[in-house]
Amino acid sequence: MNQKKIFLDESKMPKQWYNIQADMPTKLLPPLHPKTMMPVTPEDLAALFPKEIIKQEMSQERWIDIPEEVREKYLIWRPTPLIRASNLEKFLGVTNIKIYYKYEGTSPAGSHKPNTSIPQVYYSKQEGVKKIVTETGAGQWGTALAIACSMFQIESEVFMVKISYNQKPYRKIMMNVFGGTVHPSPSPLTNTGRTILAEDPNCSGSLGIAISEAIEIAVQSSDTKYALGSVLNHVLMHQTIIGLECEKQFESVGDYPDVIVAPLGGGSNFAGVSFPFLRHQLQSGKKVRCVAVEPSSCPKLTKGEFRYDFADNAGFTPLLPMYTLGHNFMPANTHAGGLRYHGASALCSQLLKDKLIEAVSIDQLECFKAGVIFAKTEGIIPAPEASHAIAQVFREVEQAKKEGKPKTILFNLCGHGLLDLQGYQEYFDGKLQDSNFKEADFHESMKALDSFPKI
Amino acid sequence: MNQKKIFLDESKMPKQWYNIQADMPTKLLPPLHPKTMMPVTPEDLAALFPKEIIKQEMSQERWIDIPEEVREKYLIWRPTPLIRASNLEKFLGVTNIKIYYKYEGTSPAGSHKPNTSIPQVYYSKQEGVKKIVTETGAGQWGTALAIACSMFQIESEVFMVKISYNQKPYRKIMMNVFGGTVHPSPSPLTNTGRTILAEDPNCSGSLGIAISEAIEIAVQSSDTKYALGSVLNHVLMHQTIIGLECEKQFESVGDYPDVIVAPLGGGSNFAGVSFPFLRHQLQSGKKVRCVAVEPSSCPKLTKGEFRYDFADNAGFTPLLPMYTLGHNFMPANTHAGGLRYHGASALCSQLLKDKLIEAVSIDQLECFKAGVIFAKTEGIIPAPEASHAIAQVFREVEQAKKEGKPKTILFNLCGHGLLDLQGYQEYFDGKLQDSNFKEADFHESMKALDSFPKI
Repeated sequence: MNQKKIFLDESKMPKQWYNIQADMPTKLLPPLHPKTMMPVTPEDLAALFPKEIIKQEMSQERWIDIPEEVREKYLIWRPTPLIRASNLEKFLGVTNIKIYYKYEGTSPAGSHKPNTSIPQVYYSKQEGVKKIVTETGAGQWGTALAIACSMFQIESEVFMVKISYNQKPYRKIMMNVFGGTVHPSPSPLTNTGRTILAEDPNCSGSLGIAISEAIEIAVQSSDTKYALGSVLNHVLMHQTIIGLECEKQFESVGDYPDVIVAPLGGGSNFAGVSFPFLRHQLQSGKKVRCVAVEPSSCPKLTKGEFRYDFADNAGFTPLLPMYTLGHNFMPANTHAGGLRYHGASALCSQLLKDKLIEAVSIDQLECFKAGVIFAKTEGIIPAPEASHAIAQVFREVEQAKKEGKPKTILFNLCGHGLLDLQGYQEYFDGKLQDSNFKEADFHESMKALDSFPKI
Repeated sequence: MNQKKIFLDESKMPKQWYNIQADMPTKLLPPLHPKTMMPVTPEDLAALFPKEIIKQEMSQERWIDIPEEVREKYLIWRPTPLIRASNLEKFLGVTNIKIYYKYEGTSPAGSHKPNTSIPQVYYSKQEGVKKIVTETGAGQWGTALAIACSMFQIESEVFMVKISYNQKPYRKIMMNVFGGTVHPSPSPLTNTGRTILAEDPNCSGSLGIAISEAIEIAVQSSDTKYALGSVLNHVLMHQTIIGLECEKQFESVGDYPDVIVAPLGGGSNFAGVSFPFLRHQLQSGKKVRCVAVEPSSCPKLTKGEFRYDFADNAGFTPLLPMYTLGHNFMPANTHAGGLRYHGASALCSQLLKDKLIEAVSIDQLECFKAGVIFAKTEGIIPAPEASHAIAQVFREVEQAKKEGKPKTILFNLCGHGLLDLQGYQEYFDGKLQDSNFKEADFHESMKALDSFPKI
């Protein structure tokens, strides 16, 4: 039997994160202050983030040291296994196509999110922060933040979109287990929430409202900060530990991926697995295809425009250069909550613009079908987000079969779906539709960007 | 930093299970046929189990080969990690007390149960079985069986206690993902179910009823068999892969446990982790304390009697020599569903009788408290069953502190609690009581055993 699970010694866990900004042929356009349209300064961000995070966000250094205390927490579950999908290969009847997946679902949160929540909370703690506030949709990011805050004994407060708060009680309970305070949003705790509730007491909330509430609380006190779970440069950089581990694991079995596949919501999990490999292409031309998979209902990379836009629906953040559907765009309600985001991180957007990465969009029914096959063969029920990568892997296999070429595929299994089983039930019950793209809404939403600088 | 996670190379995964019957100073009393009160023969069991399983159930061989096809499936998640609970040690402020846990929650089912469902299904498949029927309470065993059946492309049918079917939809969905058919029990599909529903259409079911329904379906067809997830000798033996791996993992770090702690429902997870270590005590006197932990609400080992009793509530099985509270005993409704069983396996019972293992009972509030501390320090939310072991580990630590002695503790973290979060919510909400033992019910229940042979 071939080795199925490729572990990495704890002693070989990477000691630095990789910052792709150092190697990009086109440098990032600066984030702009929405009032002045001038590049934002570190001071502009100081009310929200700790200084070290702001420094990392703007850094051009290629390698950033992972603090010893962060590494110690990572060791709770890292290095994560790289797994050869041998049973899936058998099911697909392939012989010269190898499929590997990096499994990030072994983390305390069940996803890759703690890779960044832990350093973000660590730096906050270092700078005397007492509480971190954030928003969460379906709950993955809120859970990861609550866990990190519990590790460093900082208070955590999470505004959770009310409809998810009511429909997905398990993630809320998980946050409670780790000592997190969770409010359904809109809440009566903020001006934003009170205003909305006065108009509509039954408002079921949105990520935009939850962000507004979190930021409103964060800026009220100098020892309270805010944290973001994707999109920003430092978040993507923290996730590169995924790909850096993969690189060593491939080395240990004498292999190297031809293509890397990952779902893309904001971009952190895609960046995490692919950037460390992409660096060899940028540095020495060693070719690798990096394919980002988005849901058909929210196709910013394949149908959006490269424009300056807000990172949040409410318009509180700086303007970022990104592929976007417009910050007011509300995608259809699919089960991959983590991919229902209007824009892509500046880093991923610039790389796509420069044709250094690829993007595809896939319907959710194709993804659930792929997810069920994966569960039955490999034994892990994938998160709906992760199933997007699996569906694309199946397409890559079909393509390679047609071409009769050998191929080594790596994909990021960014989380398990144990708290997303309701989606699988609806899939089995035939209640899910293919995820339609609301094109008219998109065009409407893009109009709001007319006043922002063109790229 | 000390090594936190101790992995074992796939090539070192044990190739045989350990059968403690070969080394027990007192041989097991035979199971008796309830009609004749004579020892049961292999023929008596042939309608329910495949031949190889019946052979293993009665075998006195010390080592039984694990078939290559079973090992291949085990490799999906095995060997499982042995983890040093370094953060918990830090929290408890201990320096000369080492705590290790074997983590079985990485399996496709999230518990140790697939260690036995996979070989049971494999042997059935070998003998031409087309379908396996079983019962499940909260759903762990049903899930493990559905997964194994999916692996070997056999049909699975699970009768799930109706109150769990309605209250715990996630485990039902999990079985569906793996192709299992799940019926709420009592169902209109069997005579047993129809009779009960005619009397009480709203009956919420019991494990006893579900067993009756499963057996009724199994015996109707020669290519359908039944499978049990604990209690029987072969089930306990399949689980010894847990302890055999632990042994090699301890060896690799030059350590050995002084005490091994595991929860005990029927006995399979306790046996799995402890028997391979106990064998050295039986063979060469190398001392190890093995402590089984049961809930105070269901204290068969600490308050029950060593008697012949049925393995099931309905009285369909042979009579087994066991510590029991009587097969009619209905324990208080606690959240550790896997420990709400009236008796202990014959193997564990005989070993306790011979003072080769120890037993304690613990209230559920102490267990939930320990479980939350564990989650916050080690990052894994334990199944309520597993939290019983953790509570006892805390007691062991207190004892060692008092005695000022070094101690190496191993416990079996038999599963994660991600699908049991409702219990944690009720714990936080103050809705849970200490688990009271219904002593009058116990005495009443024991009266039914008066007509069975004394031990």
